[in-house]
Amino acid sequence: MPIKVVLNEDEIPRQWYNLNADLTPKNPILGPDLKPATPEWLGKMFPMNLLGQSISMDRWIDIPEEVLEILYKWRPSPLHRATGLEKALGTPAKIYYKNESVSPPGSHKPNTAVPQAFYSKQFGVERLTTETGAGQWGSALAFACALIGLECKVFMVRVSFDQKPFRKTMMQAWGADCVPSPSGETQAGRDILAANPDSPGSLGIAISEAIEAAIADESGKTKYSLGSVLPHVLLHQTIIGLEAKKQLEKIGEKKMDVVIGCAGGGSNFAGLAFPYLHDKINGAQIDIIPVEPFSCPTMTKAPYVYDYGDTAQVAPIAPMHSLGHTFVPPPIHAGGLRYHGMAPQVSQAIAAGLLAPQAVHQLECFQAAITFARTEGIIVAPETSHAVAVAIQEANKAKEEGKEKVILFNMSGHGLMDLRGYDLYFKGKLHDYEYPEEEIHKALDQIKDFPKPQSA
Amino acid sequence: MPIKVVLNEDEIPRQWYNLNADLTPKNPILGPDLKPATPEWLGKMFPMNLLGQSISMDRWIDIPEEVLEILYKWRPSPLHRATGLEKALGTPAKIYYKNESVSPPGSHKPNTAVPQAFYSKQFGVERLTTETGAGQWGSALAFACALIGLECKVFMVRVSFDQKPFRKTMMQAWGADCVPSPSGETQAGRDILAANPDSPGSLGIAISEAIEAAIADESGKTKYSLGSVLPHVLLHQTIIGLEAKKQLEKIGEKKMDVVIGCAGGGSNFAGLAFPYLHDKINGAQIDIIPVEPFSCPTMTKAPYVYDYGDTAQVAPIAPMHSLGHTFVPPPIHAGGLRYHGMAPQVSQAIAAGLLAPQAVHQLECFQAAITFARTEGIIVAPETSHAVAVAIQEANKAKEEGKEKVILFNMSGHGLMDLRGYDLYFKGKLHDYEYPEEEIHKALDQIKDFPKPQSA
Repeated sequence: MPIKVVLNEDEIPRQWYNLNADLTPKNPILGPDLKPATPEWLGKMFPMNLLGQSISMDRWIDIPEEVLEILYKWRPSPLHRATGLEKALGTPAKIYYKNESVSPPGSHKPNTAVPQAFYSKQFGVERLTTETGAGQWGSALAFACALIGLECKVFMVRVSFDQKPFRKTMMQAWGADCVPSPSGETQAGRDILAANPDSPGSLGIAISEAIEAAIADESGKTKYSLGSVLPHVLLHQTIIGLEAKKQLEKIGEKKMDVVIGCAGGGSNFAGLAFPYLHDKINGAQIDIIPVEPFSCPTMTKAPYVYDYGDTAQVAPIAPMHSLGHTFVPPPIHAGGLRYHGMAPQVSQAIAAGLLAPQAVHQLECFQAAITFARTEGIIVAPETSHAVAVAIQEANKAKEEGKEKVILFNMSGHGLMDLRGYDLYFKGKLHDYEYPEEEIHKALDQIKDFPKPQSA
Repeated sequence: MPIKVVLNEDEIPRQWYNLNADLTPKNPILGPDLKPATPEWLGKMFPMNLLGQSISMDRWIDIPEEVLEILYKWRPSPLHRATGLEKALGTPAKIYYKNESVSPPGSHKPNTAVPQAFYSKQFGVERLTTETGAGQWGSALAFACALIGLECKVFMVRVSFDQKPFRKTMMQAWGADCVPSPSGETQAGRDILAANPDSPGSLGIAISEAIEAAIADESGKTKYSLGSVLPHVLLHQTIIGLEAKKQLEKIGEKKMDVVIGCAGGGSNFAGLAFPYLHDKINGAQIDIIPVEPFSCPTMTKAPYVYDYGDTAQVAPIAPMHSLGHTFVPPPIHAGGLRYHGMAPQVSQAIAAGLLAPQAVHQLECFQAAITFARTEGIIVAPETSHAVAVAIQEANKAKEEGKEKVILFNMSGHGLMDLRGYDLYFKGKLHDYEYPEEEIHKALDQIKDFPKPQSA
């Protein structure tokens, strides 16, 4: 029994899996007038070929050869059997995890950054803008743009920019320009700085700046790039689950009982889970669990509504489980999970009863991450620790029930650039947050008159 | 032509290569009385089974199954073809690199940390002590001890401890206790703090503390672990070169022209190079190049002498190229290359004319690293940038000469925990250091009466 399973480059999946073919989208994206967004309006932000992927109904979409050649730098990624963790837990369950931490930026994010940069360049784009919170996505897009040959501009939430100066350095090493947001470079940024020169910034503000910076280029050669939520992003991530299936087949592991991924915007979860969701839709018995922070309970507490993708109301309005676009989640260390909404495809699958979301508290996540580090050897990102926590829960459940379950989770990234949470944990300064019920009510109140998405 | 070559676990080399069999050691390690060190004296610091490996004359030494099972967590490591770099340089040379950055601690160091922890435990040891400068070695030993089940105590040079608080956090995540050195926990530390409460510490002081902490445990259950220099450490690293050979064979690349590795204590260099040195000793034409910083020119400027392994004169006296144990190298960012000596086996091979050492300035290294990041996608450690710089030099030479050379270098680790040097580079604040001739003369003067090693 191998500890990990690798694939050669010639065994990589050559097509992405598109969930649209099995779960027909029922609710279009809306524009600012609350009517279905026009291609013209969306085309100002995104290159048309990527928008085309987002609405494609084809089940399988070819991965371009040029994209594969860059993915080969770290893909196929290894699939590990968590023998150390199993032993420590004394569980009869088999635990597998897909190791996305081996990409040069350290997470799953480059799986979509590379094709987004490729298609953008193919469409004539010369420069991409984006926002980043903790820095994972900005780093991944900087990496992709360096290898594809595009300029890259990253608006990074100021409080993170100041706390993590070396995230900026990573992006610079790849040639990207990273500025703290709010910046003086956009009207949105200048307005906010005029009102509050010390604004710490937010993901919402950074998105507004990145979109404004893209739209402002009248030549059309600058576009905006988003690292999660949208269907084409989730599509690109399905290479994770497709590889995992091949790897498990290789070692004769045919039946999966539980599939787990943490979910902020939904992309790493969907990347692993959608190929299994395909099986579930076709009759397979699998528990598919997206995991979120207890303090930002998009999937477990929020309604399925139409809401803005960003705080500043410049992004499209999408059908999703949302806590309200003005909701500001508590400052947990899993910055990538502090998003008010959830990918429309994941939201629709929840509404259809296909997924079993769970919420976990911060302390349990860090405890799980430390158990994982000491048994499997890898220090995971704070986001990833949510998937580890639920994998441990499921393995313990299997022990109680005396069942030989097979569990698979997505180890979406390492935590080497985000060790502050671990440091506070060891100092006894890390704590849980209450469910911010009142704040969520207030935020949801602002969208109560929006149209309602069809739910099934 | 693949971008990278992977091996399955069942293709991993199952024996280490021991250079002693092909390059007979001529000069024993000495004790404090300048006479050959006794096993009793050495045995207070190191477990006897590891000392046995250091003096073994067997060409091949079996890797224990239990060690392999932990190495499988990231090994065999990938071998990459640097197609992006080749294209950017317009060179006819083929450039390959072995990617040791995929280990959970991010470098080649766990290749020896794991077997050292394993053999120590087998010998009845319960606790390992060590020193660390920049933090790579301390992190790797913490990782290995977590997985093997040993306590681990790391004395970290205070100035690095303060500048890089998250290195300590990494070690804590793996359950190790990391304290700044000089500490109040040893006599050596207390003496230094009494004289200078603000001492920034040094690798020499930290070694003294780690050895004292090991020897002080009269039960014999605490031993000292060293991350480079000693023959058994280099032995464990040869898995790098042995894997590389298998990988290159797999793609039909039979002849290597140039093999390159950066060298501080010598272990990552030796790990890649010794299997090729075996071929060279047996008649193959290969240029084998260890690379060092211009400001700490152990191999290119220092004599082959007997010298202490540490500043505080508690470690054994070894035959090596040395700048003198009191020499303090300029504060370059490649902390792992700031060592006054060089592994005895590497030193002997230099004295025998088998290696062609080169020295490179700091700025050239960072420029090379940035070229590498933007063409190959990986941000290398400051130490590794020295190997990249010489690989680029060799590829450019091949271009000038119009030769289709094959170049292989060791990409010994990523730089994600050591981005400060990059940051200063981008701010225009990084500079080169003069060759510290006078300091070196002073340091060498202190060992002028030591016995001289036989040179060939």
